[in-house]
Amino acid sequence: MRPDGRTTSEMRHVKIEKNYLIHPEGSVLVSFGDTKVICTASIEERVPPFMRGQGKGWITAEYAMLPRATGQRTIRESSKGKVSGRTMEIQRLIGRALRSVVDLDALGERTVWIDCDVIQADGGTRTASISGAYAAMVIAIDKVVKEKELTVLPVKDFLAAVSAGINTDGEAILDLNYAEDSTADVDMNIVMTGKGNFVELQGTGEEAEFTHQQLLDMLSIGKTGIENIIRKQQEILGEELTALILSGVK
Amino acid sequence: MRPDGRTTSEMRHVKIEKNYLIHPEGSVLVSFGDTKVICTASIEERVPPFMRGQGKGWITAEYAMLPRATGQRTIRESSKGKVSGRTMEIQRLIGRALRSVVDLDALGERTVWIDCDVIQADGGTRTASISGAYAAMVIAIDKVVKEKELTVLPVKDFLAAVSAGINTDGEAILDLNYAEDSTADVDMNIVMTGKGNFVELQGTGEEAEFTHQQLLDMLSIGKTGIENIIRKQQEILGEELTALILSGVK
Amino acid sequence: MRPDGRTTSEMRHVKIEKNYLIHPEGSVLVSFGDTKVICTASIEERVPPFMRGQGKGWITAEYAMLPRATGQRTIRESSKGKVSGRTMEIQRLIGRALRSVVDLDALGERTVWIDCDVIQADGGTRTASISGAYAAMVIAIDKVVKEKELTVLPVKDFLAAVSAGINTDGEAILDLNYAEDSTADVDMNIVMTGKGNFVELQGTGEEAEFTHQQLLDMLSIGKTGIENIIRKQQEILGEELTALILSGVK
Amino acid sequence: MRPDGRTTSEMRHVKIEKNYLIHPEGSVLVSFGDTKVICTASIEERVPPFMRGQGKGWITAEYAMLPRATGQRTIRESSKGKVSGRTMEIQRLIGRALRSVVDLDALGERTVWIDCDVIQADGGTRTASISGAYAAMVIAIDKVVKEKELTVLPVKDFLAAVSAGINTDGEAILDLNYAEDSTADVDMNIVMTGKGNFVELQGTGEEAEFTHQQLLDMLSIGKTGIENIIRKQQEILGEELTALILSGVK
Amino acid sequence: MRPDGRTTSEMRHVKIEKNYLIHPEGSVLVSFGDTKVICTASIEERVPPFMRGQGKGWITAEYAMLPRATGQRTIRESSKGKVSGRTMEIQRLIGRALRSVVDLDALGERTVWIDCDVIQADGGTRTASISGAYAAMVIAIDKVVKEKELTVLPVKDFLAAVSAGINTDGEAILDLNYAEDSTADVDMNIVMTGKGNFVELQGTGEEAEFTHQQLLDMLSIGKTGIENIIRKQQEILGEELTALILSGVK
Amino acid sequence: MRPDGRTTSEMRHVKIEKNYLIHPEGSVLVSFGDTKVICTASIEERVPPFMRGQGKGWITAEYAMLPRATGQRTIRESSKGKVSGRTMEIQRLIGRALRSVVDLDALGERTVWIDCDVIQADGGTRTASISGAYAAMVIAIDKVVKEKELTVLPVKDFLAAVSAGINTDGEAILDLNYAEDSTADVDMNIVMTGKGNFVELQGTGEEAEFTHQQLLDMLSIGKTGIENIIRKQQEILGEELTALILSGVK
Repeated sequence: MRPDGRTTSEMRHVKIEKNYLIHPEGSVLVSFGDTKVICTASIEERVPPFMRGQGKGWITAEYAMLPRATGQRTIRESSKGKVSGRTMEIQRLIGRALRSVVDLDALGERTVWIDCDVIQADGGTRTASISGAYAAMVIAIDKVVKEKELTVLPVKDFLAAVSAGINTDGEAILDLNYAEDSTADVDMNIVMTGKGNFVELQGTGEEAEFTHQQLLDMLSIGKTGIENIIRKQQEILGEELTALILSGVK
Repeated sequence: MRPDGRTTSEMRHVKIEKNYLIHPEGSVLVSFGDTKVICTASIEERVPPFMRGQGKGWITAEYAMLPRATGQRTIRESSKGKVSGRTMEIQRLIGRALRSVVDLDALGERTVWIDCDVIQADGGTRTASISGAYAAMVIAIDKVVKEKELTVLPVKDFLAAVSAGINTDGEAILDLNYAEDSTADVDMNIVMTGKGNFVELQGTGEEAEFTHQQLLDMLSIGKTGIENIIRKQQEILGEELTALILSGVK
Repeated sequence: MRPDGRTTSEMRHVKIEKNYLIHPEGSVLVSFGDTKVICTASIEERVPPFMRGQGKGWITAEYAMLPRATGQRTIRESSKGKVSGRTMEIQRLIGRALRSVVDLDALGERTVWIDCDVIQADGGTRTASISGAYAAMVIAIDKVVKEKELTVLPVKDFLAAVSAGINTDGEAILDLNYAEDSTADVDMNIVMTGKGNFVELQGTGEEAEFTHQQLLDMLSIGKTGIENIIRKQQEILGEELTALILSGVK
Repeated sequence: MRPDGRTTSEMRHVKIEKNYLIHPEGSVLVSFGDTKVICTASIEERVPPFMRGQGKGWITAEYAMLPRATGQRTIRESSKGKVSGRTMEIQRLIGRALRSVVDLDALGERTVWIDCDVIQADGGTRTASISGAYAAMVIAIDKVVKEKELTVLPVKDFLAAVSAGINTDGEAILDLNYAEDSTADVDMNIVMTGKGNFVELQGTGEEAEFTHQQLLDMLSIGKTGIENIIRKQQEILGEELTALILSGVK
Repeated sequence: MRPDGRTTSEMRHVKIEKNYLIHPEGSVLVSFGDTKVICTASIEERVPPFMRGQGKGWITAEYAMLPRATGQRTIRESSKGKVSGRTMEIQRLIGRALRSVVDLDALGERTVWIDCDVIQADGGTRTASISGAYAAMVIAIDKVVKEKELTVLPVKDFLAAVSAGINTDGEAILDLNYAEDSTADVDMNIVMTGKGNFVELQGTGEEAEFTHQQLLDMLSIGKTGIENIIRKQQEILGEELTALILSGVK
Repeated sequence: MRPDGRTTSEMRHVKIEKNYLIHPEGSVLVSFGDTKVICTASIEERVPPFMRGQGKGWITAEYAMLPRATGQRTIRESSKGKVSGRTMEIQRLIGRALRSVVDLDALGERTVWIDCDVIQADGGTRTASISGAYAAMVIAIDKVVKEKELTVLPVKDFLAAVSAGINTDGEAILDLNYAEDSTADVDMNIVMTGKGNFVELQGTGEEAEFTHQQLLDMLSIGKTGIENIIRKQQEILGEELTALILSGVK
């Protein structure tokens, strides 16, 4: 039994609120329990300099936390004048993960800017961000498809992310909240497609190690969590878009 | 008649949602129409180096916008590595305004950190920020009073801010939305106490001028707006706190 | 009676020394008592990227203080690697103020760079800067008019700035020196055209408030100060230029 | 068969040159084929502020590449004035990995600074860095043990890192050089202890996915590579130190 | 004959105006022809961290140019957010030069901050800066001697700087103005004490070379220039201070 | 007799190892005793913006030290986010020195990037850098001559640099190591061509002075050192390239 009563392989309540803001092409408010992230997707009709003229699109992500998303106020990165290593790792991860399920050639020479702003943090902010950003991105890309009359939806599969860890009893647990994350020996982030393939796998045992069997256990419960989140994405995207995406999965 | 049907001296719908986040000592979501700002107040049990040992408190503010709070995505100041002049002006304004209604000696050697994060912008973000930040600050200070058993609530009066301008017909209008702000000749921000005194007055006619009479007109409708907002603050702070604050007004 | 013997509505001695430097298109050394500012105006035959191709001109300002302009040495902003919020506010203010009296369309696609470098500070550095910068700007623009054979002088009116405040007796006082500024409850900067209209009005009561009547008093003595400074501008610009500017005032 | 004639599970030639520089407490030049990294370990007799007074030690790492370590000259991060996201990820990874095999309590309140400077790059610079840094660190810590007469060597196990990937035929390959890395679909970095447990596992399929079976294949050949590198570490550390470390493995 | 009619070994008119500003402990306006520099010396009653507790003083210098000191406006280093290599070289040079003639032990644990701000540039700004800064420094140190009742004036000798070069005819010329500096093949800066010894010698032939004989010629006319400047320093410092300094020369 | 047994006019052992790295167009590892510097030369087929369209080439240099090149670890300039004044001085010196012996017109519109990375420091890192960089540059330019079929080798003469100083006995000594450099009164860097002309001369007596005779002594032993180093350059460049360079000396 975990502090909040969940079983080892149980997700927190996942909620994705669609069109949360009026300005962005796509936006959601995603919650994994008390972790809440505003995810927006913005379309820019050009690509970064290093990609120009190739006819391909690009997806890039930024991530930030409000100073009081956390229990203690954290200093704004704009005030410090630089982005922390942790933030950079997370935004690179979000961007890579989303690009893996988008057909950049079919997207055409435009950029999807993803912004994930954590307004309340209770563990799992990067996995909530990826899972919510996927939904915001699909909404924005769908708008492009309709406005620019693209012939295909350049999205190749569903995508979600979840965390797993090893608690102090050596057991694998799913979707750690902040209290669990602080005491867990191992922190694993799993990003998976709807088909069940890995896109990213990042496991780290700060001052600790994990065995091959523990790895397999975390991957197993992680898969359950991913499937749970993807069902929520399908609900808010609707039957038509869901069917369209599934029809393109190879 | 204005684009959204308001009269020249009519505010947009003002809404202040209390305890919007779980971590901060005080927090609200304030809306002036489609402008939405998360305002939090955090208590730190020390003051900046230049104030140490004087037994006085300090109040400081930071302000930011989510990249897609606006119609076009704006670049994050953390990515640019520096805070813009506009942001600095606004956060200095918020801090000064709030300090004017707090008895810093009675607050004791602690800092109230105010964070105003605009999640959706439609004009008037700085006036909504001040008006919401005041409420978040009072909630946080009230918590300090109770936890630290202070003998008085170190808040001297209510405080709110509103914008006024001169439209292209030369008329004074209240609480401009983004469309009005873009075409107005003059932009005036008024910060006032509950007693009706000025705390800040900033009027600027970018590439334009305004007459003494136009100034008086703007101040007159501004006062109406301020009273409207202060009523909303009193509603969410509740009768007891309101009475306590009013009892201290000199 | 004030510390230096002035009445409440009396300016310090205002002096504007023309063509102070050999290189700039326009330059003056302006003094308000012991406050001394080198103001230069430089013409650049292009505009910033965001304005290109519109056929309009631009005016931008920078402001700095020598480290020992002040009683205590202040650290250079170039050594700190960033410009302070105070500096940004002042340079934005100077630029906005000057743009309000220039016909940017008639100026044509060129930039006037204003540089205000305070070599000695005794209060009122921003108002001295605006008042001196106006003169340097007109000299430089007049040179452009002659060299490029523009058909009109693109200057719409005179412009000056002055400070006013409320002393500890509650009285309005004009053109505060450093000692007065440090003890005054309210600090008001007024920027006005020759015709007597407002261009900027910035009043702040750090940890204090001011009444409607006090505002009116400050505006009244401010107008007197502005008229005084504009007479000095007219003297150094000469009869011909003065007449030309006055002929264009609407 | 791979471009350089290796089998899929074959490492490049691994070489660790001991005491490469005269000044550092520990230093090696490590080569994985044409990839060459100078790894140094420096002892500082204090810890960062956030750790003071706990009696525990700290290990931190920095990583950089000479501009012409690469085929095309890369701009120095000191010239750009900031460290890239990639560099930050790598230095955080090196630090975390090394801390996992050091008993920080037994190390005492001192910091081991690891510097990995890539002088020639041909793929696998981060895995070579970790593998070489481990050796430099043990040499430096051993010096501390002797000079400060610590009662135990605070090193809990051997540690090495290796890369694996999936080539375009879908096969798992070990220790990718730059040419292979550029075309591989998946890039996996494995950090393991001498006992065979995971410390870090980072797999990413930029614009690609990998299956559960492919993951298992990469982990299997990775283990072979790790064992190969650890044998080299044991050779240069010598029998005595090796025995001492092995005696402490739990 | 040179463009401005000087002989090859003739200085421009050198002028040092004493007590140019009211706030600094020492200040001069120094002119070498049209080159004008405000030099101030500020006393701080402590030394930088790396020197604390040794009972010795420190002298440090900063150098800057107003944007329109030059024919073309130069961007402020505060706006660029960093100090250029040229500026750093000059300020390091000024500091080193001045320290060589001050008895830092006798100065006691205090810092002399030198600020050289070029308000008008026409070649030789660094040599004018050193020559003027020396005078400002002596004035400030003399004030310390009197206020703190030091038993000796901790100044060991006079100090001045001058430039020399090789013109396109191969001849050595003294104190180059901007036009000469732009066409000269070699640029030599000589810093000398009153006794005639070298403190700094920096000669550079950008894309050119100079012979041993040309070096001797430049040193010879440089000495004449130095003597000229030191006479001006002695005039403004007055007989008493001059005698005091000369009495301490070894 | 000096600490390491050298006579006052004796160089340390000079060694230049050719083609030290596989990627750069030119590279050497240069040693002056225990001082070791990796020097690389990279060819870029374009010039910086300020030189475009003139048909001329450019040479620019960067210099850095590994953190543990020194006895105490020095902080990386990339971590500090800015390049120190000392580093800037050195890289400007290296670039100027090399440009003086290259015919930039004959080089054509391309840039030679020089990178000097000190991997071990024991005094004289800047003179070793210049001397090694010259060799790396010639190798790279020779490659350009052959690949682009230039009609001449655009190198006008040999070039080397050496340090000299005045020891505490007042004697001139050549090629100071770190221990000598720390105690010497005067530090002189001499850059000379093969023909024996000066290209740069930088002498500084931090808190000390030097006489005209001491200057002549340092220049005399410096010349000996330069000739020694140039012989080593000729050895590694080979007879053919050496003859080609000598044939072009005017």
